[in-house]
Amino acid sequence: MVKERVCIVGSGNWGSAVGKIVGNNVLRYKDAFEPEVRQWVFQETYKNEKLTDIINRTHENPKYLPGIGLPSNLVAVPDLAEATRDATVLVFVLPHQFVKQVCDDLSQVPLSQTVKAISLIKGLEINSNGVTLFSEEIARRLGLQHVAALSGANIANEVAEEKFCESTIGCHADDEPMYFKLFDTPYFRVQVIRDHAGVQLCGALKNIVAVGAGLSDGLGYGSNTKAAIVRRGLMEMRQFGHTFFGSVVQDNTFFESCGIADLITTCSGGRNRMVSEAFAQTGKSIEELEKTMLNGQKLQGTLTAKEVHEFLSARNMVDQFPLFKTVYRIIYEGASPTCIVTDI
Amino acid sequence: MVKERVCIVGSGNWGSAVGKIVGNNVLRYKDAFEPEVRQWVFQETYKNEKLTDIINRTHENPKYLPGIGLPSNLVAVPDLAEATRDATVLVFVLPHQFVKQVCDDLSQVPLSQTVKAISLIKGLEINSNGVTLFSEEIARRLGLQHVAALSGANIANEVAEEKFCESTIGCHADDEPMYFKLFDTPYFRVQVIRDHAGVQLCGALKNIVAVGAGLSDGLGYGSNTKAAIVRRGLMEMRQFGHTFFGSVVQDNTFFESCGIADLITTCSGGRNRMVSEAFAQTGKSIEELEKTMLNGQKLQGTLTAKEVHEFLSARNMVDQFPLFKTVYRIIYEGASPTCIVTDI
Repeated sequence: MVKERVCIVGSGNWGSAVGKIVGNNVLRYKDAFEPEVRQWVFQETYKNEKLTDIINRTHENPKYLPGIGLPSNLVAVPDLAEATRDATVLVFVLPHQFVKQVCDDLSQVPLSQTVKAISLIKGLEINSNGVTLFSEEIARRLGLQHVAALSGANIANEVAEEKFCESTIGCHADDEPMYFKLFDTPYFRVQVIRDHAGVQLCGALKNIVAVGAGLSDGLGYGSNTKAAIVRRGLMEMRQFGHTFFGSVVQDNTFFESCGIADLITTCSGGRNRMVSEAFAQTGKSIEELEKTMLNGQKLQGTLTAKEVHEFLSARNMVDQFPLFKTVYRIIYEGASPTCIVTDI
Repeated sequence: MVKERVCIVGSGNWGSAVGKIVGNNVLRYKDAFEPEVRQWVFQETYKNEKLTDIINRTHENPKYLPGIGLPSNLVAVPDLAEATRDATVLVFVLPHQFVKQVCDDLSQVPLSQTVKAISLIKGLEINSNGVTLFSEEIARRLGLQHVAALSGANIANEVAEEKFCESTIGCHADDEPMYFKLFDTPYFRVQVIRDHAGVQLCGALKNIVAVGAGLSDGLGYGSNTKAAIVRRGLMEMRQFGHTFFGSVVQDNTFFESCGIADLITTCSGGRNRMVSEAFAQTGKSIEELEKTMLNGQKLQGTLTAKEVHEFLSARNMVDQFPLFKTVYRIIYEGASPTCIVTDI
């Protein structure tokens, strides 16, 4: 049996938590994997030392996942070509804005003929032209036939602390046993399904729903109302999948961790909910709240609401998604936050 | 068109909130309903006056739903036979322990030949012999062919305050338009489905899941873990339905308000979650916590966990429902609360 050689492309908070899982699992299944896992780390200086040197010396990523020990077979490599050399499995876990550049860089590198890839990238590329899943973007740019996706109720720090959770992988049937071995642990329980598109749609669209849930919280509407908004949001997520991806997206996907569980987590904690709550309470603009509450970082849910609105507008289908529409109208068109219940 | 005459059987907190909805809706649809709705009120003395007299004089139920105005066409009647006389629609909204007696009393009363009934009763009758849905219990005792059921994420006080929520009715197709008119309002949005069994199963089994969620909260496990427990609980609820009610119980039911929305509400607030959280934190017994936290009232979720365990044990199927089993073992057999993640 030829062993897989795994490379993790990315090393932020989530990439580091995943590196810990993958590093340990390749040792657990020595027959299936090479023991060394290389992790491509974007080089930075941290306290006068190169981040890769710190990681390889201390087996900790003090910048993105402080306090969590990483397995010593996880080797930080600053050069993308070196990190991915001879790899047969690429785990993409990058901020979405870097995907294209990294893929273009990788397309210049001699990758293994049999390389497989999985996307842990959050979000979607969506505009009036269409929806692009990052798994498909990677497949296209690297010339791969199919790329898997992983998503779930997986707040990175909780995963790193080995708090029990679940996650969903959507992949081709041939790759199921390998990905299960690579990611499943007693504290990170993986379900593998066929629907890579649904997995990724859930991970992006949930953030719009979280904005709706946050508005409801900000208005003090109570738990019945919030549960109704979350439920209707889940139904619009499902409808979106069926409408634009057909039978590829399956009903059962929404019962998986990537669906209902991630939605629950996102709508109970999370920045999208929190900032939207403040939006309804204070009447301040999202830009202003991003400055004061997020140190200027962009809120994902409101951005996705806008992109989805442009996509639906171009197809004259806005009215078929009343929750998505209402979130957009409240955030961008000055509609009253109370529309979150009167207009859905 | 013959108009329906509606009687509400029960007048507690939830019965009063529902009485408000139904009283208003019969006036909204005057072609479909007689304008008077009689409500059977178990007679009590409240501040030296009969409760029915207070309700009919003040249009408020000060004991069970203080501060909420009731429509004046909702008439409190202390005598069951008088309350139900000529009624063609009976809305059962009683504590479950009174169902049998009330049905037996009603079986002595001349009911309309065409009487229809809907159960808003929470819970199930479940023991080693089998599962009895209250809708079916009512049907059997009153000699009716089919009885509908309503359940959802409907905390009574929030409904009474007209906070937006949704609810699910499971009924025969013939009765769908009538029940929709009777219950749907702009703030209480009703979806009507065919699956009366699933609606009721969700309303009972969710409480076991809420115990699991409360244990996780008490152990400080965070939101990934709780979302995983809620999701697995939903899957066991669905599996229970399919296993013991076959194709009567439909997957989609679990996406309705009675399913996922009610489960979210119950696992985020609610006494089952709260007492179980304290159980995990303090190590005190459930009996002791019932005394100190619930004024001696019984916790529903732990009781249902026990009844479901007896039912499954008698069928040698305990291991097929690991979450239900684990909740039982933690509460009744001294297993560590941490089993809520290690054993499911």
